[in-house]
Amino acid sequence: MELSLYTHPSDFSENQAKGKTVIVVDVLRASSTIVHACENGVERIIPVASVEDATKLLPTLDRKKTLLGGERAGMHIEGFDLGNSPAEYSSKVVKGKTLIFSTSNGTVAITKSASAKEILLGCFLNLSAVATHVISSRARKVAVLCAGDLGRLSLEDFVCGGYLVDRIVNGTRGTTLLNDGAVAARTLANALGDIGEVLRSSSHGLHLAELGFDDDLEFCSRIDKYGTVPIVTDGRISPQNCHRR
Amino acid sequence: MELSLYTHPSDFSENQAKGKTVIVVDVLRASSTIVHACENGVERIIPVASVEDATKLLPTLDRKKTLLGGERAGMHIEGFDLGNSPAEYSSKVVKGKTLIFSTSNGTVAITKSASAKEILLGCFLNLSAVATHVISSRARKVAVLCAGDLGRLSLEDFVCGGYLVDRIVNGTRGTTLLNDGAVAARTLANALGDIGEVLRSSSHGLHLAELGFDDDLEFCSRIDKYGTVPIVTDGRISPQNCHRR
Repeated sequence: MELSLYTHPSDFSENQAKGKTVIVVDVLRASSTIVHACENGVERIIPVASVEDATKLLPTLDRKKTLLGGERAGMHIEGFDLGNSPAEYSSKVVKGKTLIFSTSNGTVAITKSASAKEILLGCFLNLSAVATHVISSRARKVAVLCAGDLGRLSLEDFVCGGYLVDRIVNGTRGTTLLNDGAVAARTLANALGDIGEVLRSSSHGLHLAELGFDDDLEFCSRIDKYGTVPIVTDGRISPQNCHRR
Repeated sequence: MELSLYTHPSDFSENQAKGKTVIVVDVLRASSTIVHACENGVERIIPVASVEDATKLLPTLDRKKTLLGGERAGMHIEGFDLGNSPAEYSSKVVKGKTLIFSTSNGTVAITKSASAKEILLGCFLNLSAVATHVISSRARKVAVLCAGDLGRLSLEDFVCGGYLVDRIVNGTRGTTLLNDGAVAARTLANALGDIGEVLRSSSHGLHLAELGFDDDLEFCSRIDKYGTVPIVTDGRISPQNCHRR
């Protein structure tokens, strides 16, 4: 298996996604929120790169059954129903709904991976589920695409990517060929202790704490809370298409 | 001090260099070769981003006293006098000469930093000299700009950047504010052992070994062989302007 890690989407050309399994990692908070919404019975999620794309799409759907969610600079977008905190995506709110979802980094990484063979969403919440899915799918070319923060490395995504690389390597028979990003992230992940502390000390974690989202940091640092692997198929995430352990 | 590390130049906008001390790190091999050439008495080095820029500049200078050096894909450029192996830049070859120098990543990072307050070249060969220079200059904003490899993280630059961050933090009085890249690289550097092994196992190290440059890997992994800090002033590196311990 060729297993490469990219620190953020500007490392990664759309062409490079072709034929690969791409795991989009946005710990704070797009991947975590999507996994949580899937667990809480959302009917489908439509990730879009821009706020404009989201508002264009809205009138084509049944407004009563549709939610607009996402953030810019960590904050609620004007006119949107929901922000990007997992805490907002309870079963009561999302069950049976379509969610149009746009965030600063995560949904950009998803749309950039459009030509991939398979696109998965990964975070600490579903770490083992994603690793197990990749290993059992016998994918030959896997890219861990960290969402990063506006074209920069994000500590929490890089470390989570390193955890994924480590679990996939340990569970794969035969040789895995890692790129430098995967080697660096894996070594870093093995050198670090408390994930909660990683999230709290990261640049985006500090920003979210300032905005009052401390509870999200604790929530998003839980390893293997969920067994769901969100899969983006034809630009949509439908829980019935997602893998569950 | 604000101390940020960028995994490669596409992370870093020209605007961001303004008012900062930028340390360009290209271990394999531009920074290492430049430091070595300075130690061996080169009169000045003119780093240029493209081969075209190099060949345009050549007729404006005294050909007998000028050398064209650099690489693309690790290999000698047709019509150039020298490649990018430090071994080619002996005192006999470079003493008293002007060197026009163009490489795939390192000189691109240098030219992208043009608006910086000060541009330094760093690698393992001059690690402590660079850290000491930055600390004693009392710079307020420092950027470690890893050259990377064609828009990707390079293990050897990221680790060397981590070593620089660690030395600068340890030697600075008062608070240093690190970005996520700097935290990740520093933690990784502290977790790794043998630098020679880092270089040999890195993607670019493996490529250079295939091309027969094994000796360069050993040479470029030597910590603190030299006390010279090359400084780019008005687009030129003149050893007389460079800092020496």
